[in-house]
Amino acid sequence: MTVRIAVAGASGYAGGELLRLLLAHPDVEIGALTAGGNAGTPLIAHQPHLLPLADRVLAETTPENLAGHDVVFLALPHGKSAEIAARLGTDTVVIDCGADHRLTDARAWERWYGGEHAGSWPYGLPELPGHRAALHGTKRVAVPGCYPTVASLALAPAVDHIGPEVTVVAVSGTSGAGKSLKPNLLGSEVMGSLSAYGVGGTHRHTPEMIQNLSKAAGRDVAVSFTPVLAPLPRGILATCSATLTGTVDIREVYAKAYADEPFVHLLPEGHWPTTGAVLGSNAVQLQVTVDPDLNRLVVVAAIDNLAKGTAGAAVQCMNLALGLPETTGLSTVGVAP
Amino acid sequence: MTVRIAVAGASGYAGGELLRLLLAHPDVEIGALTAGGNAGTPLIAHQPHLLPLADRVLAETTPENLAGHDVVFLALPHGKSAEIAARLGTDTVVIDCGADHRLTDARAWERWYGGEHAGSWPYGLPELPGHRAALHGTKRVAVPGCYPTVASLALAPAVDHIGPEVTVVAVSGTSGAGKSLKPNLLGSEVMGSLSAYGVGGTHRHTPEMIQNLSKAAGRDVAVSFTPVLAPLPRGILATCSATLTGTVDIREVYAKAYADEPFVHLLPEGHWPTTGAVLGSNAVQLQVTVDPDLNRLVVVAAIDNLAKGTAGAAVQCMNLALGLPETTGLSTVGVAP
Amino acid sequence: MTVRIAVAGASGYAGGELLRLLLAHPDVEIGALTAGGNAGTPLIAHQPHLLPLADRVLAETTPENLAGHDVVFLALPHGKSAEIAARLGTDTVVIDCGADHRLTDARAWERWYGGEHAGSWPYGLPELPGHRAALHGTKRVAVPGCYPTVASLALAPAVDHIGPEVTVVAVSGTSGAGKSLKPNLLGSEVMGSLSAYGVGGTHRHTPEMIQNLSKAAGRDVAVSFTPVLAPLPRGILATCSATLTGTVDIREVYAKAYADEPFVHLLPEGHWPTTGAVLGSNAVQLQVTVDPDLNRLVVVAAIDNLAKGTAGAAVQCMNLALGLPETTGLSTVGVAP
Amino acid sequence: MTVRIAVAGASGYAGGELLRLLLAHPDVEIGALTAGGNAGTPLIAHQPHLLPLADRVLAETTPENLAGHDVVFLALPHGKSAEIAARLGTDTVVIDCGADHRLTDARAWERWYGGEHAGSWPYGLPELPGHRAALHGTKRVAVPGCYPTVASLALAPAVDHIGPEVTVVAVSGTSGAGKSLKPNLLGSEVMGSLSAYGVGGTHRHTPEMIQNLSKAAGRDVAVSFTPVLAPLPRGILATCSATLTGTVDIREVYAKAYADEPFVHLLPEGHWPTTGAVLGSNAVQLQVTVDPDLNRLVVVAAIDNLAKGTAGAAVQCMNLALGLPETTGLSTVGVAP
Repeated sequence: MTVRIAVAGASGYAGGELLRLLLAHPDVEIGALTAGGNAGTPLIAHQPHLLPLADRVLAETTPENLAGHDVVFLALPHGKSAEIAARLGTDTVVIDCGADHRLTDARAWERWYGGEHAGSWPYGLPELPGHRAALHGTKRVAVPGCYPTVASLALAPAVDHIGPEVTVVAVSGTSGAGKSLKPNLLGSEVMGSLSAYGVGGTHRHTPEMIQNLSKAAGRDVAVSFTPVLAPLPRGILATCSATLTGTVDIREVYAKAYADEPFVHLLPEGHWPTTGAVLGSNAVQLQVTVDPDLNRLVVVAAIDNLAKGTAGAAVQCMNLALGLPETTGLSTVGVAP
Repeated sequence: MTVRIAVAGASGYAGGELLRLLLAHPDVEIGALTAGGNAGTPLIAHQPHLLPLADRVLAETTPENLAGHDVVFLALPHGKSAEIAARLGTDTVVIDCGADHRLTDARAWERWYGGEHAGSWPYGLPELPGHRAALHGTKRVAVPGCYPTVASLALAPAVDHIGPEVTVVAVSGTSGAGKSLKPNLLGSEVMGSLSAYGVGGTHRHTPEMIQNLSKAAGRDVAVSFTPVLAPLPRGILATCSATLTGTVDIREVYAKAYADEPFVHLLPEGHWPTTGAVLGSNAVQLQVTVDPDLNRLVVVAAIDNLAKGTAGAAVQCMNLALGLPETTGLSTVGVAP
Repeated sequence: MTVRIAVAGASGYAGGELLRLLLAHPDVEIGALTAGGNAGTPLIAHQPHLLPLADRVLAETTPENLAGHDVVFLALPHGKSAEIAARLGTDTVVIDCGADHRLTDARAWERWYGGEHAGSWPYGLPELPGHRAALHGTKRVAVPGCYPTVASLALAPAVDHIGPEVTVVAVSGTSGAGKSLKPNLLGSEVMGSLSAYGVGGTHRHTPEMIQNLSKAAGRDVAVSFTPVLAPLPRGILATCSATLTGTVDIREVYAKAYADEPFVHLLPEGHWPTTGAVLGSNAVQLQVTVDPDLNRLVVVAAIDNLAKGTAGAAVQCMNLALGLPETTGLSTVGVAP
Repeated sequence: MTVRIAVAGASGYAGGELLRLLLAHPDVEIGALTAGGNAGTPLIAHQPHLLPLADRVLAETTPENLAGHDVVFLALPHGKSAEIAARLGTDTVVIDCGADHRLTDARAWERWYGGEHAGSWPYGLPELPGHRAALHGTKRVAVPGCYPTVASLALAPAVDHIGPEVTVVAVSGTSGAGKSLKPNLLGSEVMGSLSAYGVGGTHRHTPEMIQNLSKAAGRDVAVSFTPVLAPLPRGILATCSATLTGTVDIREVYAKAYADEPFVHLLPEGHWPTTGAVLGSNAVQLQVTVDPDLNRLVVVAAIDNLAKGTAGAAVQCMNLALGLPETTGLSTVGVAP
């Protein structure tokens, strides 16, 4: 079986990572590559690492150019996917790497993003309890945000054993911010410096974490989330903590939760996750411990924000949607050092 | 007045930063420079940035070599300072950049460091309530650890308004680990990667934070502390949070607390600290906010771990000990970008 | 066909990259993993990115442990390969990533490395004229040094059109220096700094460049080589220049030379190589130009020093040695950004 | 004596570095700070490291706003300085950090920059033979480009002993490119990658090197110059080479040339320059060697492109122009690690 895919937003970081992974996918043929302002330019100008596609010229992101593919990946700014998706055939698999279809609660959408809620699609984090089934054979996937991916996987197994509030401080590389031409994202500003942003619960990924953890818990979970920007292109390391309510063997809880997951790895005791170890891979590395003085669970988790945090998850969900083995074309081996 | 100073541990990072600052100090003459294994080698081999001292040959770290100076800075591994200090004259100002004399509680020392407690000296964080007075004219100073410096300054003003437990996740550059030749500190490992260490309350700076905040609060404060290693040489960015117990104007509380402090700066609203902005300076940049959904205070603070986090604090305390203006030879201007 | 391979030196950077590539190679089964001082420890302690091999325990590097494999990769310090190789069967394919068998001239070996010359093996740079044939079906391969790889590919096509002396300044990431625990390789030293080393023709890769270019030219070519260390883990960018002796269309010369090479890419005019674009891949990116004021050819070339510069070349040569398609298990797609 | 200074272009990197140095200069009072598009915004939004000036609001860059100061620093894009300078009083010291007044040859200006040549001003590299005298008491200074600074100081002492052509490959941090919002300067693109640009003698700093070296030699010197962009904010490391024409003790030549220079340091044998060692300082670190196989001189030199490469040179020239000690407010001590 060969599926023909299209990528909208092919000149950005998520689009580039999608293409990198799809070039290595045995069942995929790469069709239309589209862009907004970069339409009309060759891909090599934006993705010099994708040599096999160097000469491809970017088309405009229109429903017409995206039509006629088995799978369409949307790597667009939020608010742009819904309109395009509505004009793609219902038998096309549409995988939205943006935020438009992640939140189930229309009021949450309005509060955090503004504008009309486009509705929600099956949420592309198959490792969360109850989520994989909805992705099998689906025609629509909302790929999770990078921070919610790592925070949800880090805390979901523990929800029955922790207090009502969790704290997430996640340090991220710069590619999560995309190719936006903002002064604070210039290399000169980023290198040799650390900065916080979206402090005080103001980052848009907060409601997505709340949604995931509350659903897993069957009750409201409150999330204190702070993202930190660090000088590296890729990778998120999240430190997640919460007060334990009992004396469960929490390590055992995590070991069980992820025993059969191909991409989520609870490391052996004494080893701690690093983002370098998952660079370019779809792996999630986790370690858990308990601070005995506070009876506080601390989970550290690492992902590659562009891979498992975006494009890798998208390919994983495509596999599920098409009935392919879930791990096809994806690796747990990072590129290090 | 010219004071003659000596630096023990002059080939390390703290020693190098001390010398950088002291070379720019108008009242200082640099005397003996000593080292352990590097004794007998020229300073340029270890500190190629200190050109005016390039030809100085390192002496061995002995009480004899350190004798005859007005001020002796000890930048030694923990457990090494007490013995040396005991053999320096009581009229010599001894400023210990190591951990030996920071903890007031002998049991805490034994639990976290092991071995016999050397006793405690005036704690060199003049910006903490009640600490400056003890530093005026003192002959002994225990320079705080870098993480406790930033965490204590970030949270001390709020202690009357928060619950019993605080969470500190502090991202640090690599120089905090010193020049230790460990594989995980190699450039190839560090660059492009983030890692956690000392998770679950196991980092030795934890009891120092507890000591500072509990003293400021007049009651026990519990601290959940996780340090994260990021790819930059210098800088700590700490995200500190705690549940607010009332409805105080917390920004006002901070503004008041640090109104007269020359080195601690509450940034204007809308601006967030970055470590790049304080690189090489003695400044602390702070910003505070409240997550309204959780009524949780979040404070972000940035320092240079080698400057205000170690050597800058040491010079600041020397100034106080000698009766010089506190800011002599120190700057609030960072080297950026 | 499945070939069983062993890797000696599996805890180092070259060994880790070999394993990363071999894990993705469809025809390979991974056998013994050996090490020197790290023997007895699990691979995860050294290569946390190689999750599928996490539990493997490193054996000692002995001929016995390496016996019984179809292919043995040696990623050992120079001077260590010859002895091991002599004790491996002549029907075993032995691929030496070290320097022992690269130089054909015994006097050059003695001058640059000292000790007895172990003799030379087929040189694993198939893209150099006349080299590929010798690699088909060979049982022994000397994998080129990383700098000679990039410099030779950058200049070989031009040797008939340039003067007798070439200048190579190659900037490299730190992994080329291996996991050596030296102070100048610590992250704190490397980040935010550039340094030169091996200046004045003293780097051991110089005679290898001379050998390659002189052989390609059929006359002596003199090489002025300076390596520069830059703050990134992987990648070499070489700036190579030489005076042109005639008025040939040099771009056309390069286009022809590499027209059929799967891994060497002359970029379209106006695009310049970056190491980021080849990270993790076996691609070489080249661009050529002529400075009209000097009639001087300038070639800029980028490789990943661990991939095409070491482990990728080794796998490419294994493919040739075993009669597999040359590109099996190798990619020209980099991991960027 | 207190001189009142103004900085035009205060929101850029050169402007920020000027202010950092001028804040530490004992004889300076900081007057007008002006900008182009950033006029009307507070300095803290652009230079968060300059805390003492945080509240200053940027004025527009007009002759009126710059009038009434003893010294005006122009840190403007090329082509913008001449017009402003013409409208500043002839008794004002005007120090142009841009390119407008560097080239003495109008045809060279037209070829490399286009537009009308504004004429040339005393060239602000006092360490070049014959240049210091012209700077004493001058009212106009053309601050050299960063690459010409390092290349000229690296090669000028040797001009009587080398062949007609020199090769310069200079690796630079990203701040040399300014705060331009270009995709290739984004942190995500820069970190973990090396790239070449301005290859083949096309960089505008080439004619400035030719001018300096030809003047020093009293004959035409040809320059092959290639700049390389590396992942660090600041620093240039230049590898400069040329064929020696005789058998002079070239080390001695350099030692003599710079014996009395406060900022140019020929390192002791066995030590090589690093940019980390000069970060934030006005020092130039040099090392020389000869490749005996080629009788080729290789000089490696390191500067901070924003300090000695721009703003430090500007302050040094201000000192000369005002009759202050040349080193006032400048340091040879770098900020490392």
